[in-house]
Amino acid sequence: MLNKFFIKKVGFAGLAALLVTGPAAAAPDADTAVIFNTLLFLIGGFLVMWMAAGFAMLEAGLVRSKNVADICLKNISLYAVACLMWMLLGYNLMYMDVGSYFGTFSGPWTPDDTGVMDTGYAAGSDFFFQMVFVATTASIVSGTVAERVKLVPFLIFTAVLAGVIYPIQGSWEWGAGWLDQMGFSDFAGSTLVHSTGGWAALVGAIILGPRAGRYIGDKIRPMPGSSMPLATLGTFVLWFGWFGFNGASQLALGSVSDAASVSNIFVNTNMAAAGGAIAAFIATRLIYGKVDLSMVLNGALAGLVSITAEPLTPLPLSATLIGAVGGVLVVFAVPFFDKLKIDDVVGAISVHLVCGIWGTLAVPITNTDESISFLTQLTGVVSIGAFVCISSAVVWYALKFTIGIRLSEDDEARGADIAELGMEAYPEFGKGSQKF
Amino acid sequence: MLNKFFIKKVGFAGLAALLVTGPAAAAPDADTAVIFNTLLFLIGGFLVMWMAAGFAMLEAGLVRSKNVADICLKNISLYAVACLMWMLLGYNLMYMDVGSYFGTFSGPWTPDDTGVMDTGYAAGSDFFFQMVFVATTASIVSGTVAERVKLVPFLIFTAVLAGVIYPIQGSWEWGAGWLDQMGFSDFAGSTLVHSTGGWAALVGAIILGPRAGRYIGDKIRPMPGSSMPLATLGTFVLWFGWFGFNGASQLALGSVSDAASVSNIFVNTNMAAAGGAIAAFIATRLIYGKVDLSMVLNGALAGLVSITAEPLTPLPLSATLIGAVGGVLVVFAVPFFDKLKIDDVVGAISVHLVCGIWGTLAVPITNTDESISFLTQLTGVVSIGAFVCISSAVVWYALKFTIGIRLSEDDEARGADIAELGMEAYPEFGKGSQKF
Amino acid sequence: MLNKFFIKKVGFAGLAALLVTGPAAAAPDADTAVIFNTLLFLIGGFLVMWMAAGFAMLEAGLVRSKNVADICLKNISLYAVACLMWMLLGYNLMYMDVGSYFGTFSGPWTPDDTGVMDTGYAAGSDFFFQMVFVATTASIVSGTVAERVKLVPFLIFTAVLAGVIYPIQGSWEWGAGWLDQMGFSDFAGSTLVHSTGGWAALVGAIILGPRAGRYIGDKIRPMPGSSMPLATLGTFVLWFGWFGFNGASQLALGSVSDAASVSNIFVNTNMAAAGGAIAAFIATRLIYGKVDLSMVLNGALAGLVSITAEPLTPLPLSATLIGAVGGVLVVFAVPFFDKLKIDDVVGAISVHLVCGIWGTLAVPITNTDESISFLTQLTGVVSIGAFVCISSAVVWYALKFTIGIRLSEDDEARGADIAELGMEAYPEFGKGSQKF
Repeated sequence: MLNKFFIKKVGFAGLAALLVTGPAAAAPDADTAVIFNTLLFLIGGFLVMWMAAGFAMLEAGLVRSKNVADICLKNISLYAVACLMWMLLGYNLMYMDVGSYFGTFSGPWTPDDTGVMDTGYAAGSDFFFQMVFVATTASIVSGTVAERVKLVPFLIFTAVLAGVIYPIQGSWEWGAGWLDQMGFSDFAGSTLVHSTGGWAALVGAIILGPRAGRYIGDKIRPMPGSSMPLATLGTFVLWFGWFGFNGASQLALGSVSDAASVSNIFVNTNMAAAGGAIAAFIATRLIYGKVDLSMVLNGALAGLVSITAEPLTPLPLSATLIGAVGGVLVVFAVPFFDKLKIDDVVGAISVHLVCGIWGTLAVPITNTDESISFLTQLTGVVSIGAFVCISSAVVWYALKFTIGIRLSEDDEARGADIAELGMEAYPEFGKGSQKF
Repeated sequence: MLNKFFIKKVGFAGLAALLVTGPAAAAPDADTAVIFNTLLFLIGGFLVMWMAAGFAMLEAGLVRSKNVADICLKNISLYAVACLMWMLLGYNLMYMDVGSYFGTFSGPWTPDDTGVMDTGYAAGSDFFFQMVFVATTASIVSGTVAERVKLVPFLIFTAVLAGVIYPIQGSWEWGAGWLDQMGFSDFAGSTLVHSTGGWAALVGAIILGPRAGRYIGDKIRPMPGSSMPLATLGTFVLWFGWFGFNGASQLALGSVSDAASVSNIFVNTNMAAAGGAIAAFIATRLIYGKVDLSMVLNGALAGLVSITAEPLTPLPLSATLIGAVGGVLVVFAVPFFDKLKIDDVVGAISVHLVCGIWGTLAVPITNTDESISFLTQLTGVVSIGAFVCISSAVVWYALKFTIGIRLSEDDEARGADIAELGMEAYPEFGKGSQKF
Repeated sequence: MLNKFFIKKVGFAGLAALLVTGPAAAAPDADTAVIFNTLLFLIGGFLVMWMAAGFAMLEAGLVRSKNVADICLKNISLYAVACLMWMLLGYNLMYMDVGSYFGTFSGPWTPDDTGVMDTGYAAGSDFFFQMVFVATTASIVSGTVAERVKLVPFLIFTAVLAGVIYPIQGSWEWGAGWLDQMGFSDFAGSTLVHSTGGWAALVGAIILGPRAGRYIGDKIRPMPGSSMPLATLGTFVLWFGWFGFNGASQLALGSVSDAASVSNIFVNTNMAAAGGAIAAFIATRLIYGKVDLSMVLNGALAGLVSITAEPLTPLPLSATLIGAVGGVLVVFAVPFFDKLKIDDVVGAISVHLVCGIWGTLAVPITNTDESISFLTQLTGVVSIGAFVCISSAVVWYALKFTIGIRLSEDDEARGADIAELGMEAYPEFGKGSQKF
């Protein structure tokens, strides 16, 4: 009998199309390409939006139960604030008529008449896709500074990060500014998104100081997260959403070559995460004798951040190794920051900053484009790092010396849920269960 | 050097296509348009299906732990029952040869020979997309009447709602019945889906009465939800799914103009939710001094419901404001219904009914189509409201006076989980933890 | 006035396209078809990847709290290991130059030059889609053997299953091997994926033995799951992901006929799950007097597994019934395995093995292709079953007699979380709450 598998795979219509159409007729027409490009942004966009839920669950699982409602509120609020600031300021600042260092303030974004950009996709789809990226940057910070930062100042910081800091540095590369002109390459944002969030988190953690009782002399007091399944769920959500993050950063799906590229990006993104998780598994097993679930979760995320600067050119095995290096880096970075008494509740600095730097510097290993060099990559890492650190510090200090950024000792002890929200996340479990 | 950004964004193939093809050749051929339209329904459909999980988690988080397994069971069962009734009755009643008031009963839906409708998409994709909409309507009711309604009568109500009530009123507009002919406009269902669910919930809550001990004299006894992270997760799921809900209601993706419209709908949907969340944040902070997480979650949902009647024509800033009004409405509506001693466990009446009405009446603000007026919008709101209230009341009363709709006092006190399922949702936590 | 509904549904551009283009010009060109096919795989692929989160949540909800972190770790690790093994061995073994019984070992997969296969889609998209399928197979096992299997031997078993056992039997059918040549039909893997996972789980459960204290004489001691909302969430995730699992197994979206097929598959997949859930609801109500939530969840999954072997040819009502039979089978299979003292923590054998067999044998009921017969279907079920059982037994026994597969009695009593991870999943709830 006929090989049903092959027929089924091609489909009779596809077979006919392959036979009938000559190569001249094979390329999609311009409108079809625009629709494909737009669709890629929409799919990628909703996947990245969903990552906001991933950060929320990851952080809700890794904080103590007395701060869970607060971190949930911060996560949904920061997403909303980031989107608003992006609409009011960020998009224009990052993408509109960028000279070398930032774009023009032309006010709230409006779709243009035809709704299609000369880059080949609907303007709204681009705006949407870029909007969810800035939300990701903002999400990174909340986990590090959790359990002690006050709600409103945190959201003000988020607003400035999303509306000013992120788009200015973003314009240097994705807005075709000076870093792009120099040859710096950051495909989907290891530096522009993840390190930026990581630097802002690092500066915040230093200025805020550690949680009360976290470091006693040279001892670190463990403060285990309240729900490992929620942390696991959050990690899976982020892994899932990352296909949109990296895949749609191809920015086009209107040709077979673009479709093949997006496909390879999916494979590499998945393998880097797998590599990171496995590496962290093995590393914690070797070092500590037991496997640390939160390290494996962070290892997967580390792999994802590491591949984000260049998810297209590596072969899948290389992508796995790039991710695996990220997974190992996290296993060493987390205790390193603890040794410095920089208190990062969820390990976001280790994941997003350390691996964001690693991924960016690793681009030349697999991307042989002659304009890309280790030096230009380092220039991007350092210049964006310096800008984000300085501007973040200014904002954090301004907030500290005005409305204050830290919960009172008493509020921190009671937990942010009671102190700031007047409620409990789990009123019937744990200590709450004694009341009902 | 060349601007890599621009080249990367367009892609060489896209660039070539833009240069080579003249405008005459630019439109996608008819089959390509059909595939795009169908794909939009499939993507939109699975996103809306996923909203069923969102309602389940939102409600599981907002009920007390003794009713969590029961609300989970209700949510998965109501989705199944709604789909079944839609297949057996609803689709035909809503879409097949609708005169003015309902369609023909032609029995279980079958895909036609060619599988493509003259509206330009595969018949199955339309059936699927419409099916998940009715499930959404049914999901709205379960949260309001939670913690006291019996399982089986609730599901019988769901069956009638999904199989008869929803499709009859739906046919008036989306089946091209009398409301559509009059010029009523409800893009994705602020009235047809959300208010319909809200009216059915309101009538149910009145007939059922409040939970035991909820209102003591003029006092309201707080009954805090058992898990704020699950409620937050549910809200994120709904926000995520809403891109399918509103976006695929464009009903076409086969032209650049449609792709641009879907993109703008995504932006507006996102901004309305952000506006609703921020408005509820600010409002609760000003009124109560503390920010209420459950209000912020409901504020985001309120923004989404508010924009659903017209997510296409507003500019993003207008969409934000339309959503923000929804967010404020919820903050006032929730205590208002409590004052009336109408006990709505999750606030679904405030979110879906109140904001569904607001969104529908707000359509003429941004949609300047001359056939649309405040009066036709009001006619739609009132006529559908009257129909749903009367028909729901008939069903709820019929159930009340036959098999009964309310748990016994004793069962309500023990919780629906033990009473109806013989199990606990969290057997090892809270009170359950004393047993193991 | 004009019927806005119809105009809105078609869109003016679509209308124009329908009018202007003749039938000869109607088919998408070859490249457009390739992009559609590739996009189907990418969308299907990320949906199936997301099922890994579904299994994780389902299992985390159904094990006791002392084993929750362990099952989370197993789930994310097995996904990573399965992907790695698939890249290193599996893809080649299953798809590359398959003779009758397995493919060639050509080492780590690499995208070919053009990146497009002669089957009409990008090579990377096919690799990605097939990769997430093997991860699903591996996920099935973890739930059955939970709460007593050791972490590392379990992952070694997973590696062999994903890298060797799954691809060899898979090549027999999807690699166009001997079963395919005989006429065996398994559209999306009732046998190749679900029964394979189920057989491996069954053999594992027998060799491991039941959990300590599970069976005392003829009595079964209930060991209720720790979180029903997480189990419900997991089920919804799986239901959602299954649209990708079955829908993208059409393997093409480049023609209207394929788009219509994918649409009908979505409808049938949804209805089978609904049928399974409703049937399990009714069956447990009739048999036990109370509705069992975990049975309804498993009933939905049973419906999904049952329709997976043939989701295209049934009418929706038939699909509902095929799923309903699955739902009833599960209600009887779960106590049946308990009677045999085969301890399956989450009911995965009943869902994936029993219903996988049922679905495969049911193919000829609706698929009237003459090459398909009950006998060829049975041949596939039996041959794959024999191969998987024998090879799984070899691996499980090899592990048992070397590094050991079972936790010590003491470790099992304390729970795998403390024993293997040195942590608790919920340190502040239940027993953990006494420490903080």
